[in-house]
Amino acid sequence: MSNSVNIIQTTKKNLKGSTFICGLPGVGLVGNIVANFLINNLKLEQIGIVDGDNFPSISVVKDGIPNHPMRLYAGEQVCNNGKCNQLVICVSDFVPPTSATKELVKCIFDWAKDNGCTSFITGEGFSTAPSDGEKDSIVYGITSTEASKDWIANAKVTPFEFGTIGGFTGVMLNEGRLRSLNVLGLLAEVEEDIPDAKAASKIIEAIDKLLLEIDLDPKPLLEEAASLEKELQKVSEQVPTDNSNSIPRYIG
Amino acid sequence: MSNSVNIIQTTKKNLKGSTFICGLPGVGLVGNIVANFLINNLKLEQIGIVDGDNFPSISVVKDGIPNHPMRLYAGEQVCNNGKCNQLVICVSDFVPPTSATKELVKCIFDWAKDNGCTSFITGEGFSTAPSDGEKDSIVYGITSTEASKDWIANAKVTPFEFGTIGGFTGVMLNEGRLRSLNVLGLLAEVEEDIPDAKAASKIIEAIDKLLLEIDLDPKPLLEEAASLEKELQKVSEQVPTDNSNSIPRYIG
Amino acid sequence: MSNSVNIIQTTKKNLKGSTFICGLPGVGLVGNIVANFLINNLKLEQIGIVDGDNFPSISVVKDGIPNHPMRLYAGEQVCNNGKCNQLVICVSDFVPPTSATKELVKCIFDWAKDNGCTSFITGEGFSTAPSDGEKDSIVYGITSTEASKDWIANAKVTPFEFGTIGGFTGVMLNEGRLRSLNVLGLLAEVEEDIPDAKAASKIIEAIDKLLLEIDLDPKPLLEEAASLEKELQKVSEQVPTDNSNSIPRYIG
Amino acid sequence: MSNSVNIIQTTKKNLKGSTFICGLPGVGLVGNIVANFLINNLKLEQIGIVDGDNFPSISVVKDGIPNHPMRLYAGEQVCNNGKCNQLVICVSDFVPPTSATKELVKCIFDWAKDNGCTSFITGEGFSTAPSDGEKDSIVYGITSTEASKDWIANAKVTPFEFGTIGGFTGVMLNEGRLRSLNVLGLLAEVEEDIPDAKAASKIIEAIDKLLLEIDLDPKPLLEEAASLEKELQKVSEQVPTDNSNSIPRYIG
Amino acid sequence: MSNSVNIIQTTKKNLKGSTFICGLPGVGLVGNIVANFLINNLKLEQIGIVDGDNFPSISVVKDGIPNHPMRLYAGEQVCNNGKCNQLVICVSDFVPPTSATKELVKCIFDWAKDNGCTSFITGEGFSTAPSDGEKDSIVYGITSTEASKDWIANAKVTPFEFGTIGGFTGVMLNEGRLRSLNVLGLLAEVEEDIPDAKAASKIIEAIDKLLLEIDLDPKPLLEEAASLEKELQKVSEQVPTDNSNSIPRYIG
Repeated sequence: MSNSVNIIQTTKKNLKGSTFICGLPGVGLVGNIVANFLINNLKLEQIGIVDGDNFPSISVVKDGIPNHPMRLYAGEQVCNNGKCNQLVICVSDFVPPTSATKELVKCIFDWAKDNGCTSFITGEGFSTAPSDGEKDSIVYGITSTEASKDWIANAKVTPFEFGTIGGFTGVMLNEGRLRSLNVLGLLAEVEEDIPDAKAASKIIEAIDKLLLEIDLDPKPLLEEAASLEKELQKVSEQVPTDNSNSIPRYIG
Repeated sequence: MSNSVNIIQTTKKNLKGSTFICGLPGVGLVGNIVANFLINNLKLEQIGIVDGDNFPSISVVKDGIPNHPMRLYAGEQVCNNGKCNQLVICVSDFVPPTSATKELVKCIFDWAKDNGCTSFITGEGFSTAPSDGEKDSIVYGITSTEASKDWIANAKVTPFEFGTIGGFTGVMLNEGRLRSLNVLGLLAEVEEDIPDAKAASKIIEAIDKLLLEIDLDPKPLLEEAASLEKELQKVSEQVPTDNSNSIPRYIG
Repeated sequence: MSNSVNIIQTTKKNLKGSTFICGLPGVGLVGNIVANFLINNLKLEQIGIVDGDNFPSISVVKDGIPNHPMRLYAGEQVCNNGKCNQLVICVSDFVPPTSATKELVKCIFDWAKDNGCTSFITGEGFSTAPSDGEKDSIVYGITSTEASKDWIANAKVTPFEFGTIGGFTGVMLNEGRLRSLNVLGLLAEVEEDIPDAKAASKIIEAIDKLLLEIDLDPKPLLEEAASLEKELQKVSEQVPTDNSNSIPRYIG
Repeated sequence: MSNSVNIIQTTKKNLKGSTFICGLPGVGLVGNIVANFLINNLKLEQIGIVDGDNFPSISVVKDGIPNHPMRLYAGEQVCNNGKCNQLVICVSDFVPPTSATKELVKCIFDWAKDNGCTSFITGEGFSTAPSDGEKDSIVYGITSTEASKDWIANAKVTPFEFGTIGGFTGVMLNEGRLRSLNVLGLLAEVEEDIPDAKAASKIIEAIDKLLLEIDLDPKPLLEEAASLEKELQKVSEQVPTDNSNSIPRYIG
Repeated sequence: MSNSVNIIQTTKKNLKGSTFICGLPGVGLVGNIVANFLINNLKLEQIGIVDGDNFPSISVVKDGIPNHPMRLYAGEQVCNNGKCNQLVICVSDFVPPTSATKELVKCIFDWAKDNGCTSFITGEGFSTAPSDGEKDSIVYGITSTEASKDWIANAKVTPFEFGTIGGFTGVMLNEGRLRSLNVLGLLAEVEEDIPDAKAASKIIEAIDKLLLEIDLDPKPLLEEAASLEKELQKVSEQVPTDNSNSIPRYIG
């Protein structure tokens, strides 16, 4: 099966100068919660979908509307304190297959270039050993270029100095560096691989500091994030099983 | 192996304005029973077959006639109480391999567009936890577009609000939304994965309310559906085993 | 690996109006025994081979002559009692891989069309539950077209009414129906998957009644068929093992 | 991965009328020992290599020189007793993957035709049940054409009459027959799958009788063959392990 | 998935007459330590990356900068004692998949030809049986051409005479011989598959004797090599797990 990935844009929007934020599930569903929170709070509009030959054949139903499992959203330009921002958000309800990761990143960068997006942020969780006491999740930041290095300080996150970053975020950083595109990778510590609204809220705070200049009250953020968790729970209870097996089932 | 899927039409018919109904087996063989019931009761005529490179290599024999395991049927325009309908039915005796699902849906929509079909219904079962007492199977409905949303109320089914829908029905809804085609997905609760004529009859009732305006007596419907079950049983008793293995068998 | 299948004809012959008979091993090696019996008794001449990218890499040696494991044979026109027949026989020493079945059938029909073959017969065994007493193997018949339906009665076999037919015979029937080509599938009951000369002789009788109009004495037929069994036995004792593994073996 | 196979000729030589001998390892490394013996004794020169996309990624080092694991050698014309011969030898240190066998044979025949080779010999071992006493290994011979049939008697080997021959030798015979090229397959009985110099010497004697007309003293032949065994042993003791796994290994 | 491999050069440099050194991990991470040591000590600059369709999707972060896992470095011409050298170094943090090894070697040789590199060195460890006492790791050398044979004596390493060399080094030697390119393979004995700075230092000494003519003090070399080990250790502690599985993970 080919690994080709395509973006189909269903709504045209002027996205010149916008920031492209990616939220793929990963550990603790962190990226997913971050992306959904931003989409809901900024009331972004779905502008298209991302599909690949070996992406899963499922529809994610929300409020009675069927959705592709990887989607693009965007809003209008938002200005606070003299700083302006427009967001494009790519949210995914599944981790793309490893063999498609490079194609996905290339597809995103090509589309972003055509649409004038100028900066990129990916948010993801990563596993850390469980700690005894109550410890805040550390968020690490790393950028693809020298030019974007001060984003780490601006977002008030800990620089990620040594290590390997696998999957989508790793390829975004590599390919961003090759293309001289500014990419910020945000990685929040997660102790257990269960939906982790607290780790997600830390990444949202960082994005907020960097881009939105909105004074966020962390409590509603956590409540909202927690309600996202519940929604995912509800989904999983009502979900019809996937009857398609790779081995065809005969009747009779 | 390629995933290409083709429709070969063997009988030409004017299908302008017709409704395309898909019945693939799934849980409880529900979609299959629904499609066969409609084909038999409306005396539809086979007009073609759907074949794919990785569809199973079997012939389904009925009344001494060999059949491809996925087929298209159509009838003439039927009018009741001033409402008119013409049906095209795609019935399958196997669940298509996951890797071919997207191609199958694209093939169906392309063919339907060329032939002027204007609405789409898929019927399928989905697993639910067994209940204690005698409970009627709930049928959920979901549509691909805002325009077709009132079909849910008209068919008197329960709106499907949150969850994920896998396989053929999920892709029909996603792709239908992308192409702005009206698709209604009907999902009937099934408690056990055995041929479930009762769940199928609930979907037939819903289709009837929506399209045919025939006052159905549920009893003969159940009898008919039950006899379809028996036919499948008979098939399975007389069936020669499939000698083709993917690993070639040598003689000697 | 591709599934392409090719026929390479090594001897030109006028085959206009001939009957194409396929004998692939299957359960009880029935098809194989049938094809070999006809080739030997009618002294047919090898006219070509059928090869596919994923057909086995073996040579079948008979009388010191190496052979491809799937071959085509043909004879001159034979006329008895005013009825004339010319046969092309495709015999295979292996069951083709499932993924190549459709390509094989298409390749055969394309070649047959180019060479003017007008009817098709496939013979195969199928598994049945063991019976207590001495029971004759029933031979079922099924045709691809309305036009060829009376072949079933003419061959004095039992009509196959309901069920699924897997593999080569199933695809021959489906594709034959699609192309409006007359195909007769003959399926002989086999109780155990060991070379079954008796079941094969039943299919030979049916073919004889339909085509050759020769008054066959069943005893020599069984003797001949039994001697074919012995030949296969002899082959298997002297056979060098296939040293080719899919994983390369290094020396040292 | 593709199965394409290529011959890269590094030294040009006039090979018109030469005999092409193939020695692939197989059971008892028989073909390999035969080919190496002939290369060493006739002081043949390496003239090229055979490589395929899925041939192993190894270098076989001899006398400090790295070698592809499948190689071509040739010598000058040798005449004895008025009979002349020139040999091309293809020696392989691995059994080619089954999926590449047909491509390899086609590649060899195409190259041989371009270079004017007129006859072909393959030597291989095949497994036989262990015997009690001291029994000489029987060598069987089989040819692809009627024209080359007397080679079997000339080489004083036992005709191979019935059976199946798998792998490289089988495909050489099949394809040779199709192309009307004279191929002699020599198969020596081997009781255990350990390097078998004695079985190899039987094949060398047969080749000698057929082609070289040199009066071979079997003793030095066995000594030479035994020393080839030792060389292979030495290789295996000093061999660095193959660190390449199909699954990439990460550091750290 | 295709096995295509590409070099993307990000910094142009005149590399005419330079030596191309490859350091891939293998047993004991020897090649990797060698390459990193040379890059650090000669303060080489990253000039590009090597990427392949089935190379791992990871970013290797060093000093807060994301890196492709296979990279090219080069320096300026260095002259000592009248001898001049310029190095290009290919360092990899993973063992390339076997199926891509040949493509990788071809890609490297093609690029090297375009850029005027004239000699090639690969360094790797190979497993040896553990010895009792304190024994120095032997470094073996082997060259692809007659012309480069004296490099083995110049580097003061033990000639590798018989055996098979798997993976990247084996293919570099084979392909180098075919293309008449001078390749030196250096293989250091490693007793256990743990990072082996001592074995690496032996290869560095050999390269130094051959190319750099710098009087190396083995102690700082070992210290440096040991600190490289620690860095790799640090990386592995902080590493986020790779969340991408080949089987897509659904949320909910």
